[in-house]
Amino acid sequence: MTVYAKSPDGEVGWERFMAKRARRMRSSAIRELLKVTQFPDVISFAGGMPAPELFPVREIEEACHFILREEPAKALQYSATEGYPPLREFIAESMSKYGINRTPANILITTGSQQALDMLGKVFIDEGAPVLTSSPTYLGAIQAWRAYGARFITVPLDENGMQVEKIEPLVKQEAPRFIYVLPNFHNPAGTTLPEERRRLLVEIARKYDLLIVEDDPYGALRYEGEDIIPIAMLAPERTIYLGTFSKTLTPGIRIGWASAPAEIILKMVQAKQGADLHTSTFDQMVVNDVAQRGFLKVHVKRLRKEYHRRRDTMLDSLTEFWPEGCSWTHPHGGLFLWAQVPETVDTQELFHIAVERKVAYVPGINFFPNGDGGRHAMRLNFSNANPEKIVEGIRRLGVAIREMM
Amino acid sequence: MTVYAKSPDGEVGWERFMAKRARRMRSSAIRELLKVTQFPDVISFAGGMPAPELFPVREIEEACHFILREEPAKALQYSATEGYPPLREFIAESMSKYGINRTPANILITTGSQQALDMLGKVFIDEGAPVLTSSPTYLGAIQAWRAYGARFITVPLDENGMQVEKIEPLVKQEAPRFIYVLPNFHNPAGTTLPEERRRLLVEIARKYDLLIVEDDPYGALRYEGEDIIPIAMLAPERTIYLGTFSKTLTPGIRIGWASAPAEIILKMVQAKQGADLHTSTFDQMVVNDVAQRGFLKVHVKRLRKEYHRRRDTMLDSLTEFWPEGCSWTHPHGGLFLWAQVPETVDTQELFHIAVERKVAYVPGINFFPNGDGGRHAMRLNFSNANPEKIVEGIRRLGVAIREMM
Repeated sequence: MTVYAKSPDGEVGWERFMAKRARRMRSSAIRELLKVTQFPDVISFAGGMPAPELFPVREIEEACHFILREEPAKALQYSATEGYPPLREFIAESMSKYGINRTPANILITTGSQQALDMLGKVFIDEGAPVLTSSPTYLGAIQAWRAYGARFITVPLDENGMQVEKIEPLVKQEAPRFIYVLPNFHNPAGTTLPEERRRLLVEIARKYDLLIVEDDPYGALRYEGEDIIPIAMLAPERTIYLGTFSKTLTPGIRIGWASAPAEIILKMVQAKQGADLHTSTFDQMVVNDVAQRGFLKVHVKRLRKEYHRRRDTMLDSLTEFWPEGCSWTHPHGGLFLWAQVPETVDTQELFHIAVERKVAYVPGINFFPNGDGGRHAMRLNFSNANPEKIVEGIRRLGVAIREMM
Repeated sequence: MTVYAKSPDGEVGWERFMAKRARRMRSSAIRELLKVTQFPDVISFAGGMPAPELFPVREIEEACHFILREEPAKALQYSATEGYPPLREFIAESMSKYGINRTPANILITTGSQQALDMLGKVFIDEGAPVLTSSPTYLGAIQAWRAYGARFITVPLDENGMQVEKIEPLVKQEAPRFIYVLPNFHNPAGTTLPEERRRLLVEIARKYDLLIVEDDPYGALRYEGEDIIPIAMLAPERTIYLGTFSKTLTPGIRIGWASAPAEIILKMVQAKQGADLHTSTFDQMVVNDVAQRGFLKVHVKRLRKEYHRRRDTMLDSLTEFWPEGCSWTHPHGGLFLWAQVPETVDTQELFHIAVERKVAYVPGINFFPNGDGGRHAMRLNFSNANPEKIVEGIRRLGVAIREMM
C-alpha cells in the first residue's frame, strides 16, 4: 500500500490529527476472518449471509423496470431524509397489524439496520455512557457504539436469551442510556426471549423509566414454535424497534428502518441528515414496489422452508460428528447457532486448525463487548452454505475439535 | 404527532438520555425551507438539485438489467465496506489520468459525498477540535461536523474563493485537524480558487504539516475557462479528495468517494463499517456499469451545455430585473451563484416576502458556520429550474427586493 506522508519525527503519521474515538475503532474481527475464508474451497459458517440462490432476482428486476418507467424523475433525485413516504407508510401499517400503533412519523428508513445502530450511538451515547446488553451480543452494535465511547454493562444469556431477572440492580445503579435486546433468534446465540421475560423487561424499564432497543432482523424467519409478542407492542412508549429487509429480501440493497416515539425519530432524522442526507431513493422505491405487491409474504415462506432444512441439517450433523463435551443452542429461527466446545479447546486457537481444514466460523470472544467470555464458544451460520456443505463443514470442524482436545 | 412518553417531572422526555452532541444537532435550515417551497407553483432556487429531465434513465435501466442478468448473486449480497472493487479501480484510474497516483487502496466508496464528510468528522473531530473553512461554506459540512463538536475557524471569501493569504496566522495558532476547501465552483459562493492560491495553500499546509480536504462535487461541470490543477495533484500526500456521481449521473443513487493516503482510508473504512457496513452493492454496480461503458463523458457534455445555458439565463435576468446596489458572483461552473442585496435588505426577512411571491432561495446566514455573516446575501441555484422559470423567478425576486428597500 502506498504511504504518502511521514510526520516530522519520522513516524507514519496522520494519527496525530485523529479524534480519540478513531483510536477506539477497529476493523471487525469477522471482516478480517472473512478474508481468510473467501477461497472457494473453504466452507464458511462465519458470515451472516443469506443464501444467494434464493434472491428474488426476477421480482427486483421487474420493480427496477416499473419504477424507471413510471417515476424516473423521482427515483433518481434527492429525497427526504426520513425516507420514501409510501415505504414508511407500508412499514407503519405492517407494524400496526401486530397491534403496535405506528404512523409514518414513527418510522425512519435507514441504510440497513446497521445505520440505525449508528444513529442510536450518535443520538444517545456520550463518552463513557452506559449501555446495557446481553453478553454475548451483536458484533455490529458493539462496533457502532464503541466508536462513540459506550461503556457496556452486560448480563449473561441462557437458553432463553438475556437473563432479564439479573438486570434490576444494574439498571438501578447505572441508569443505562438504553437496554439493547435481540429477542428473536439472537445473533450470535440463536436464543429467543420468552414472553414472561419480555414482560419482566418492560416492567423494569417502566419502573426506572428507561428506553429499550429491540433489534429484530430475523423475526420473520421462524422455523418452529409460535410468534411471541414484540417488546415494541408491550411498551411502544419506550421501545425503539429496528427492522430490515436484508434478511427477508436482499442485503445488498440496504434498506432497514427504526420505529420509535416520534420525538426520538426526529432526533435520528437530524443525525441521519448529517450522515448521508438520505438512503438511496431508487433502492427504497424498489423495495417498496416489491413489498407493496405482497411478494414478501410468499418469499418469506420459501426462505423459512429452506433455512429450516439447513438448520436441521446442521443440528443433525453436530450430533453425528462432534465429540462428547460439546453442546449447542437449538434456534427456533434466524441464521445462527451458538456452540460450546470442551474447556480444553480455545476457539481462537482452533480457528487456525479449522481454516487449514477448509472450514470457518467466528470465535465466541468477538461477541463479548468486554472480552470476558466466549473462549470455548463459536457462532455458526446455517443460512449461507447448502445442506451438503453444512454436513461436510460440521464434519471437518468435528475432526479439528478432536485434534485439539 | 404521537408522543408516547413523558418524563417523571412531566416534561416530554427522552432528551435526558441523549448525548451532548444530540443537543447540537439541528435540522438543516434548507430542509425546513424546502418544505415551504414544495408547492408546484413556487419557483425554487433553494435546493441544489440537478435537472431531472436530464437523468440518463435508459442507461441506468440497461445497467440494472445487465447486472441482474449477469451477476445477481453478487449484486444483491453483502459486500466489502471499502466498496465494489471494479468501481474503486475505475475511480483510481480516472484520478490517475489527472496525474494523481492513486490505487484502489486509496479509494473508499461512500453513500454520497455527505457520508465522506461524516466519516471525516468521525475520524478527525473531537469535541472542540478546530477545523479551518471558508466562510460561507458548504452547509452539509457544517451540519456533519457540528455534531462531532467541531470549532469552525473561518477565513473570508472573495471573487477568487477562500482568501488563502489570510490562513497562515490561523493555522499557526490553531493547528486545525484539516483545512476544508471547495476549490471549484464553491457551494454556496460559485467562486473558483485560482492555481496560485492552490499552490499557496499547499505551501502553507506543507510548512505546518497539515491535512487538506478538497471537496469537488462539481469539478466536471465547467462552463467557461480552463480546468485548474486539483489540490490532490499538487499535494497527494496530505489531501483527502471527495468526489461524487450525484452531479454527473444522479443523486438518488447515492454513490460518492473519498480518495486519500491509504492510512486515512483505512481509518475511514473502520468508521464506515460501524456506520452502514457498506454502500448498496446494487447501486455501486449500476454506477460502475454506466461509468465503465464510457457514458459519463458524453453525458457530462450534455449537462454542461444545458447548465451553461441556465447559468447565462440567470446572469442575464439578474442584470435585467434586479435593482441597483445588488451584485452577484459569475460562476465558471457548478450549480450556484451568490448574490448580495443592499444593506437595507435582510435576506431572512426577504425570504417571507419572496415565498408570498412564489419564489425561494437560501438566505446567506445559513452558510456561515459561526452565524457571523450573510445577512444581505443569498444562494441561488440555476440547475433545477428551466430557463423560462429562471427568468420569471429572478423577476419575482427583483420585485420583492425593491419592495423591501
